[in-house]
Amino acid sequence: MYSEIHMPKGFKCAGIAAGIKPGGSKDMALILSESPATAAGVFPTNQVCAAPVKVCRAHLAHGQARAIVMNSGIANACTGSAGMVAAKDMAAETAKVIGCEPQEVFVCSTGKIGPQLPLDKITAGIGTLFESALVEHVQDTAEAMMTTDTRPKVSVAEFQIEGRTVKIVGFAKGAGMIEPNMATMLAYITTDAAVEQHALQSALKRAVDRSFNRISIDGDQSTNDTVLALANGAAETRIIAEDSHDWGVFEQALEHVCFELAMMIVHDGEGADKFVTVNVSGAESDADAELAARAVANSMLNKTAWAGRYPDWGRIMDAIGYSRAKVVEELVDIFYDETQAVADGCSSGVPQEELIKVVSQTDFAINIELHIGNGVSTVYTCNCTEEYVRINY
Amino acid sequence: MYSEIHMPKGFKCAGIAAGIKPGGSKDMALILSESPATAAGVFPTNQVCAAPVKVCRAHLAHGQARAIVMNSGIANACTGSAGMVAAKDMAAETAKVIGCEPQEVFVCSTGKIGPQLPLDKITAGIGTLFESALVEHVQDTAEAMMTTDTRPKVSVAEFQIEGRTVKIVGFAKGAGMIEPNMATMLAYITTDAAVEQHALQSALKRAVDRSFNRISIDGDQSTNDTVLALANGAAETRIIAEDSHDWGVFEQALEHVCFELAMMIVHDGEGADKFVTVNVSGAESDADAELAARAVANSMLNKTAWAGRYPDWGRIMDAIGYSRAKVVEELVDIFYDETQAVADGCSSGVPQEELIKVVSQTDFAINIELHIGNGVSTVYTCNCTEEYVRINY
Repeated sequence: MYSEIHMPKGFKCAGIAAGIKPGGSKDMALILSESPATAAGVFPTNQVCAAPVKVCRAHLAHGQARAIVMNSGIANACTGSAGMVAAKDMAAETAKVIGCEPQEVFVCSTGKIGPQLPLDKITAGIGTLFESALVEHVQDTAEAMMTTDTRPKVSVAEFQIEGRTVKIVGFAKGAGMIEPNMATMLAYITTDAAVEQHALQSALKRAVDRSFNRISIDGDQSTNDTVLALANGAAETRIIAEDSHDWGVFEQALEHVCFELAMMIVHDGEGADKFVTVNVSGAESDADAELAARAVANSMLNKTAWAGRYPDWGRIMDAIGYSRAKVVEELVDIFYDETQAVADGCSSGVPQEELIKVVSQTDFAINIELHIGNGVSTVYTCNCTEEYVRINY
Repeated sequence: MYSEIHMPKGFKCAGIAAGIKPGGSKDMALILSESPATAAGVFPTNQVCAAPVKVCRAHLAHGQARAIVMNSGIANACTGSAGMVAAKDMAAETAKVIGCEPQEVFVCSTGKIGPQLPLDKITAGIGTLFESALVEHVQDTAEAMMTTDTRPKVSVAEFQIEGRTVKIVGFAKGAGMIEPNMATMLAYITTDAAVEQHALQSALKRAVDRSFNRISIDGDQSTNDTVLALANGAAETRIIAEDSHDWGVFEQALEHVCFELAMMIVHDGEGADKFVTVNVSGAESDADAELAARAVANSMLNKTAWAGRYPDWGRIMDAIGYSRAKVVEELVDIFYDETQAVADGCSSGVPQEELIKVVSQTDFAINIELHIGNGVSTVYTCNCTEEYVRINY
């Protein structure tokens, strides 16, 4: 699927089965930069936070990194001091094999909360990843990141600086139903651009806000969520800073990769088979628009209605009403794609069949106009099927 | 089921099929007090609010009422000025038949959001309710209130004042999954006690906070939620006020009825077959304890885990971590009933089978000790099964 995609210059990667997951599926990945790369990261604010997230936060202070090492199957969350030791060991072991400082290694884990990591398997896995598996294409790495994902997720962007091609390759794994109560979402962005560290952090934060934080994930909800970016400068172009000529094109490319990965996550929501875009306009502020859009996107009654091809706009009215956004019932218009369901807070009188046609599609938009101000926001979400309940049994 | 239960003195009630719901099931109810009763009410704060709720709010200012008239099948929400006219007409028509002022009639509707009420059927129904159906027992009335409920919900309490028996009879209908995104929850409390109006409102508010607001319903979420209390004094006992001798026993009896109805609603949650009590103690404050308990009770990942008899305490740790309650991961203990799953934020090492035994029961408790302060809270909830998704298709 992604076997044609190569890493940016100076990066190698690998994905193997280290025996952490039962059944022999791939469960460890390594992304390696041949030279020290500028690093940026975005982490959850959950008070219950996995050991590897704590280690990543600390290592980010170093500002530079050589590698990201990760395992799936076990989250190394709620594992106490033993879990912290394991996460640090995982970084130290990787650093030893690569020949760098432990602070130059980011560690991530995703999977079940509670169990301790099997350190013998992790250590053996790191050796295997480095010695025999490092390649320049991305398929195995993306596969090793998967948990309940049904397909690997990779996005690529290229742009020009000084006549040279600069590349961004991003990896992601999705999680649960992409609800506030989601399991882990991980994304790794690699680029051979040369980017000043503060600029990279600022661009990553902005791109995350406009992509992963638009898919009705509250970035602060999971114990393990992590987005990391490494920029190693191997394309040998001038350094990008926030005030430099190339800033715009870099930001745009980074956002493109993050956005594409985020959309892949929604499309691969557990048990989901519909992709729904919730647009809110005319809100008192952008923040208000976002509150209304999230309330609609997160409502179980809406998600199950969409699963049943049931265009119940009353549930949308209800959700925006209890959201903390300012709503004046009598001003609200709601459209399913271009078909108006609600006019001035009441039924538009459109035949139900017209609305059913829209929600029967696998991809449609709910467009909500509040007619109060100029605030706009968009949230991307998916439906909730019986399959979702089965997966989470 | 409730055919042995009689109304408090001076109350009559009725439930009939008025043709609003398809299939001939009961869909209109009337509760009538022979003399003006002191009235109290608790309503949702949703900005999108059904016409009958607006009418009830206005009529409550009158302080006294003779009747509650309700229909199921259609919510009369998002129905604009036509809906307001319909709700007022429903009150006026009832008042005309009874011979009282329209402000002495409360109106409620529950069902689908959007459609207009069929006023001809409503008017005919009011006539039938009054002329031929009024009785002193409660079964039909409770049945007429049902929407996705699988059984009617009635609770009774009796207590003594001056050697006389005073009675409270409460009716309720449940809603959706008893989630923040619930459909309508309605409850009507009737008593032949004589209660001062301010005292009745204060007692009702307190009882609602300790019952209906404990079942992971945010009282402010639906468009139609309404709790009404009528006290007609027909037991001919002294008037109860907040500083009077009988205040305590009245408050207790009212809370008992509200609590029993609330528990019936959780037990009858759409598609649910498990009743789960979430206790949080040791929080920095009671408010903090409530935030943590609600986060656990509302988490889809927890609700589906309980449906699958899967004791995944990691999802509980995750939920309290992202709640706004203060949580120190390393201090948290979690018990399934009496069986400790988490000690100091990590696995207690208890065999998984022991925990599976607990979550395989139809009724169990999750006990969470935060070890920070003295705040406590309890929230009652249910599991989420595939059946829930099917019901909401």
